[in-house]
Amino acid sequence: MKNLHDAIKVIAFDADDTLWNNETYFAEAEQKFSELLEDFLPRHTVLRELLHTEISNLPLYGYGIKAFMLSMIETAIRISDKKIPASVIEKMVNIGREMLEKPVVLLDDVELVLKTLKGRYRLVLATKGDLLDQERKLIKSNLQEYFHHIEIMSEKKEDDYRKLIRHLDIKPESFMMIGNSLKSDVMPVITIGGYGVHVPYHTTWAHEKIEVNLESDRFIVLDKLSEILHLFPEN
Amino acid sequence: MKNLHDAIKVIAFDADDTLWNNETYFAEAEQKFSELLEDFLPRHTVLRELLHTEISNLPLYGYGIKAFMLSMIETAIRISDKKIPASVIEKMVNIGREMLEKPVVLLDDVELVLKTLKGRYRLVLATKGDLLDQERKLIKSNLQEYFHHIEIMSEKKEDDYRKLIRHLDIKPESFMMIGNSLKSDVMPVITIGGYGVHVPYHTTWAHEKIEVNLESDRFIVLDKLSEILHLFPEN
Repeated sequence: MKNLHDAIKVIAFDADDTLWNNETYFAEAEQKFSELLEDFLPRHTVLRELLHTEISNLPLYGYGIKAFMLSMIETAIRISDKKIPASVIEKMVNIGREMLEKPVVLLDDVELVLKTLKGRYRLVLATKGDLLDQERKLIKSNLQEYFHHIEIMSEKKEDDYRKLIRHLDIKPESFMMIGNSLKSDVMPVITIGGYGVHVPYHTTWAHEKIEVNLESDRFIVLDKLSEILHLFPEN
Repeated sequence: MKNLHDAIKVIAFDADDTLWNNETYFAEAEQKFSELLEDFLPRHTVLRELLHTEISNLPLYGYGIKAFMLSMIETAIRISDKKIPASVIEKMVNIGREMLEKPVVLLDDVELVLKTLKGRYRLVLATKGDLLDQERKLIKSNLQEYFHHIEIMSEKKEDDYRKLIRHLDIKPESFMMIGNSLKSDVMPVITIGGYGVHVPYHTTWAHEKIEVNLESDRFIVLDKLSEILHLFPEN
């Protein structure tokens, strides 16, 4: 591997489940949702139906909690053959509203990592999802000051990263992206010539799971975020 | 008024109801919604209740069609005292889904204006709302090529414009914003030292209506968008 310190100009971080927890809130919400519908279908089948609705709604609704709320409601109406009472739909709305108001809990060593790298590299936050919701989480996180640029993207595919890199006015080989999703944070960045760093989180949304068989010296896997500092030692 | 040609470097356009129609789709949807609930309340009262829900949800949901869908559902549950059948809620979901798939119809002379100004000024699209939805509309509009920068904002207040102007690396007095909302497009820009151009649209969402009593040589009102070309004559 080349000397990373010389190669890299911009280090971009995913947010959800890379800097703070997110998927656990979705998992909790799904459990509550499946409970509300267990009179109609077994809970694991309810969850399968919900996932099916979410994926088919992605092109129309995108990512985020409002999309999730609408998918819960649509799944409930379909599963119950339109027999679900309004009082239960209200509970689903409330599950979503609670999610929007959850605290932002930073993952281990996030502040240490940002503090150590800031000033030595341009740090970018590159997150996918609902604009207002991601802005709110960033404010709650108190991490704004570390970032030179915040990019909230509707998708994280190769072209989206190409656009970001162009906007940052650097070459792909000077760009490193760190995140918990191989599919959204790592693979597309490696494909376009950048560095992709995978820091797995204990829970991954089914739609983000992929099989990967990749050999590249720009592909790095870490057990935890703080190990990134070993790649960029301070002299 | 100073010579605008010398003063202005960036001309920013609002999108909804400035470049293409939007509010008419909301107005149609509101009518359908009030029809669905007329067994519970008179239609004008239903609309007042919906507006109340939308405004109180703004901090949590932000702008856009998904927020509107959730507000319809919440209003229906409240008004009906939880008696609204799932089949009717499904109709509300479908009202929203149809809105998301509406065509983008450009307003008069939009392409002429953009074509004439492009190259002479940096043109920016500055729009509020749901990220995915606004991106989709921009693609459908075929106007992307005219813009040097696209900014999708969760709010359009003074600080949001300050951030945009900083990002564009210009002074406020070199920035002109054109839009149909006095509250979101014109007033905050004038307050921070830029030029605000109001092009009224025949329908304005109640929440965007304000009384204004403003004297400023940076406040310009036009009857229609194409009149902007009179401000920037080609020699």
